[in-house]
Amino acid sequence: VNDAPSPVRLVPIPGIPAVQSGDDLSALIGAAADGASIELRNGVLVVCQKIVSKAGGRVVKLADVEPSDEALRMAEEDGRDPRQMELVLRETKRIVRRGHGVTISETRHGFVCANAGVDLSNAPAPDTAVLLPVDPDGSARALRSALLDGGASAPLAVIISDSFGRPWREGLIDVAIGSAGIAPIRDLRGTVDLAGRELEVTAGATADQLTAAAGLLMRKDAGIPVVWIEGYPFEGDGGVDETLRDPSTDLFR
Amino acid sequence: VNDAPSPVRLVPIPGIPAVQSGDDLSALIGAAADGASIELRNGVLVVCQKIVSKAGGRVVKLADVEPSDEALRMAEEDGRDPRQMELVLRETKRIVRRGHGVTISETRHGFVCANAGVDLSNAPAPDTAVLLPVDPDGSARALRSALLDGGASAPLAVIISDSFGRPWREGLIDVAIGSAGIAPIRDLRGTVDLAGRELEVTAGATADQLTAAAGLLMRKDAGIPVVWIEGYPFEGDGGVDETLRDPSTDLFR
Repeated sequence: VNDAPSPVRLVPIPGIPAVQSGDDLSALIGAAADGASIELRNGVLVVCQKIVSKAGGRVVKLADVEPSDEALRMAEEDGRDPRQMELVLRETKRIVRRGHGVTISETRHGFVCANAGVDLSNAPAPDTAVLLPVDPDGSARALRSALLDGGASAPLAVIISDSFGRPWREGLIDVAIGSAGIAPIRDLRGTVDLAGRELEVTAGATADQLTAAAGLLMRKDAGIPVVWIEGYPFEGDGGVDETLRDPSTDLFR
Repeated sequence: VNDAPSPVRLVPIPGIPAVQSGDDLSALIGAAADGASIELRNGVLVVCQKIVSKAGGRVVKLADVEPSDEALRMAEEDGRDPRQMELVLRETKRIVRRGHGVTISETRHGFVCANAGVDLSNAPAPDTAVLLPVDPDGSARALRSALLDGGASAPLAVIISDSFGRPWREGLIDVAIGSAGIAPIRDLRGTVDLAGRELEVTAGATADQLTAAAGLLMRKDAGIPVVWIEGYPFEGDGGVDETLRDPSTDLFR
């Protein structure tokens, strides 16, 4: 990491059709990459959560959801659909904060985000909701493996992204919710600055920085749910689950 | 924003010497860009806070700092240098959290970050500390204006970046602390999804996503404090100060 870096290129991959439950994402993405003359090697593929969830059948008809008393009460307070609130509660391990019409949840995966990631927009039909994938790291590993078609040691990283809000700052930013074929955190321990002093900083959020970069080109609303990043020298292998802060050392939980 | 986007290129700009108090950053960056055959037009220049602070004289000798009783007490609790703690308190408007040896401050600018941005690593000499710029938005405007040399309407965005930690996730990510020549937040109100439904999402943190992308190539420890981004269609003009969440609507303050 002390070598001068090369330029990095972010390339949107168009041509991915509306995804349905049961679709083979690796086939759809592979075909779209072929169409854009991109070989999915030596780079990082960032895939929007929404198409992973749709392919994985994580779409729920609101008409099939029976809201609990708790969901009815909370929905009333927040001016939301009680069936959406019921889904939020089902996806939630713990409520971190509530206020201003928003519920900030810790999801079953350990992510902290608004409404436990339950999204009514970008759903495939009105009156449906899209939930986060059950195991985003597993989805990233499976997609990577399928794209490599058995050549598991080839250099290809797969990251699954979602847009999260943040405390203190307006605006959503894309973050990694699943990863494979890349170490999501870059360990900087032992790195020294120009004066030879060890950095206080010990870890860089590589996967989240790649995901935010890809977010510049993601267009959920215009059919660009996949971005290809080339020229970034990634290494290692790990899941995003390893990078979630231990609740016992977290000052905001 | 509904058009299919073009590729984006992130280009590190090497050749910027160690910056001293009073240096003309626009001259140093202009010369380095010339050396890399980059014309600083139609793109986004992301500049690491550290060189802005150094050029602006925001470097303090710890020997000149007299710690208050409060700083002595807090430093003892956290196992830190009391003179650094004194600087943290001077830069702090309000302490947001304390624990695990870290003080999370709201800085005088309104940023929420560890140790109010006071950094002992990457300082120009041992026993010195680097503080955040006094007015990062003003620094971005001044640098942009100097680089444009009077042609204030030419398309050039300048963002000043720093590395912040986050709740809930390990690893630092680069965020925008100052901006000029770009709207730091992309307004998505009225945008519809593929099904014609209005997005729940209403704002994208454009400046922070550009900054995180640039962070992939920033090497404070190897003399690459500036990254050039071309191909991203930015618009508008505003400061990062406009994008800080109103404390009265913030669930984590």
